[in-house]
Amino acid sequence: MTDPRNMIELWRGDLRESWHCGHAVVCDERGEVVAAWGDPDATIYPRSSCKMMQALPMVEAGIRLPTERLALACASHQGAPVHVEKVRAWLADLGLGDDDLLCGTEVSRDKDLKLRMIREGESPCQVHNNCSGKHAGFLTFAQHLNAGPDYVDPDHPVQRAVRDAHEDLTGMDSPGFGIDGCSAPNFATSVHGLARAMACFAAAREGQGARGDAMARLRDAMCLHPDLVAGETRACTDLMRAMGGRVAVKTGAEAVFVAMLPEQRLGVALKVVDGATRASEAAITALLVHLGVLDATHPAARRYLDAPILNRAGLEVGRVRAAEGFPI
Amino acid sequence: MTDPRNMIELWRGDLRESWHCGHAVVCDERGEVVAAWGDPDATIYPRSSCKMMQALPMVEAGIRLPTERLALACASHQGAPVHVEKVRAWLADLGLGDDDLLCGTEVSRDKDLKLRMIREGESPCQVHNNCSGKHAGFLTFAQHLNAGPDYVDPDHPVQRAVRDAHEDLTGMDSPGFGIDGCSAPNFATSVHGLARAMACFAAAREGQGARGDAMARLRDAMCLHPDLVAGETRACTDLMRAMGGRVAVKTGAEAVFVAMLPEQRLGVALKVVDGATRASEAAITALLVHLGVLDATHPAARRYLDAPILNRAGLEVGRVRAAEGFPI
Repeated sequence: MTDPRNMIELWRGDLRESWHCGHAVVCDERGEVVAAWGDPDATIYPRSSCKMMQALPMVEAGIRLPTERLALACASHQGAPVHVEKVRAWLADLGLGDDDLLCGTEVSRDKDLKLRMIREGESPCQVHNNCSGKHAGFLTFAQHLNAGPDYVDPDHPVQRAVRDAHEDLTGMDSPGFGIDGCSAPNFATSVHGLARAMACFAAAREGQGARGDAMARLRDAMCLHPDLVAGETRACTDLMRAMGGRVAVKTGAEAVFVAMLPEQRLGVALKVVDGATRASEAAITALLVHLGVLDATHPAARRYLDAPILNRAGLEVGRVRAAEGFPI
Repeated sequence: MTDPRNMIELWRGDLRESWHCGHAVVCDERGEVVAAWGDPDATIYPRSSCKMMQALPMVEAGIRLPTERLALACASHQGAPVHVEKVRAWLADLGLGDDDLLCGTEVSRDKDLKLRMIREGESPCQVHNNCSGKHAGFLTFAQHLNAGPDYVDPDHPVQRAVRDAHEDLTGMDSPGFGIDGCSAPNFATSVHGLARAMACFAAAREGQGARGDAMARLRDAMCLHPDLVAGETRACTDLMRAMGGRVAVKTGAEAVFVAMLPEQRLGVALKVVDGATRASEAAITALLVHLGVLDATHPAARRYLDAPILNRAGLEVGRVRAAEGFPI
């Protein structure tokens, strides 16, 4: 077992104040490791970074959805009005409503909506949960299968199909699952396994069978709707826009981040071991620059890497930097 | 240089999902290391954990303040009404107001006040900043010295006195300073140096000179007013209450935590290298239990260590635990 690699550092004055270690893998479509940092075999929960895998069985089963709904199924959206309205409309089309979701309520992360709801005394609903699009997808597939309403049960046909797809794409049996923030099972894999799955998505092309079609459609829907995958000021949206929709990226809780590079047919997965999002965002930015798909001087890149740390008076007091030698 | 030590782990299902490494030292009043984990010589910024050292020159100069104001000078309070009102009254007694503070504005971290201010369209002031008590102390000392208004300038007499006290108590020259979130200089030291300073505070007794008097009064004021040092639901307040006011503890940004144990005449300092507060809170809890001053089964202890992780539906999905062998 290789130790995690120092990836991201916070400097204040002349001192490295804090730093973040992790594992990362770049993988090709055959499942071969092209580059790795830390331990490729480290076992992780992908968390929300694998939502496109959780949506895959639904699309592969032949359910046709508009690209906006495919993007929302893969999203950790911030519960902005655009997300909430589209998920509500999707549920209505299924003949369902907020109470049929099992993800739990979450305060909207959209600043304006959050403030408006506080001012008007409104309580958050399950559609505001960042996973509500994924759950609308689960409900769509459950309805298609004529399966029961407890679609987050690990033995429910929806989750059994998710596990099968997950193990196929990662190329390994999942060593187990944890229960995610939204109550769905989240199947563990290795960093290498997750990168391999992302390479499969990157290399997928329509016209090569139901699975390839489904993977290409989900990936392309993410690239087409970066605003639906996360939201304004969020890393996934910022970075996908900066790359002009040519690369799909997705964050996951506890500092997981993945990328799918269709032109290069490469997949990327990383996990910062301490779970800090500020570090996973900086690390994926560094890797995308390293792989030649993101301009290091783009304002979006500079928001996450080599970014100034401002204090409460607005003074620059430090910097977020890549550790020496990472990722080169 | 010793590597940081794995201290705190997050488990989800059967998998260790994330973990946190750090340095910690327990020190006696002679400056001897009683116990250490990781690298005692690691250089750190104490951040807000050293506010009692920043208040020390003011008290040592003979300025007499009520214990509530001494506690506020050492506080990272959450801008609850009780904190805001007391700092406002203090400033008024100095003939000063919010505009004389240099800490910057901060949204109150008190949930009810924050919501009320949003509903009523009120903007946060500098008194809401968690450091406003420290800054009221700086202003008090600056006025006493007839010094200028830019009291956060590292060359200002207030900050020169802070640096002198800091270097005396840590037993080492500071290798430099960073600018803190509140714009004051924050002098670097080693984990050992910070623990040594905390042991000096722990061992201080009134009647042994101006410095000893001042250290004892600041430490006792923290123990007497745990609600003013942080606030409801905050670790410093919870833990000091759980220990019946017999131990003073203080958090600092980027995962620093210190403790002063007067009965044992011991000081504790720790830094989690990735800067995660969830880990520094759990680690100081583990050390306080280890040192015999906190009951591991006390609800406050269980809030930070061996604490359940609940998801958005309220299900327990994981645990925050001490790493195997830490701290024993």
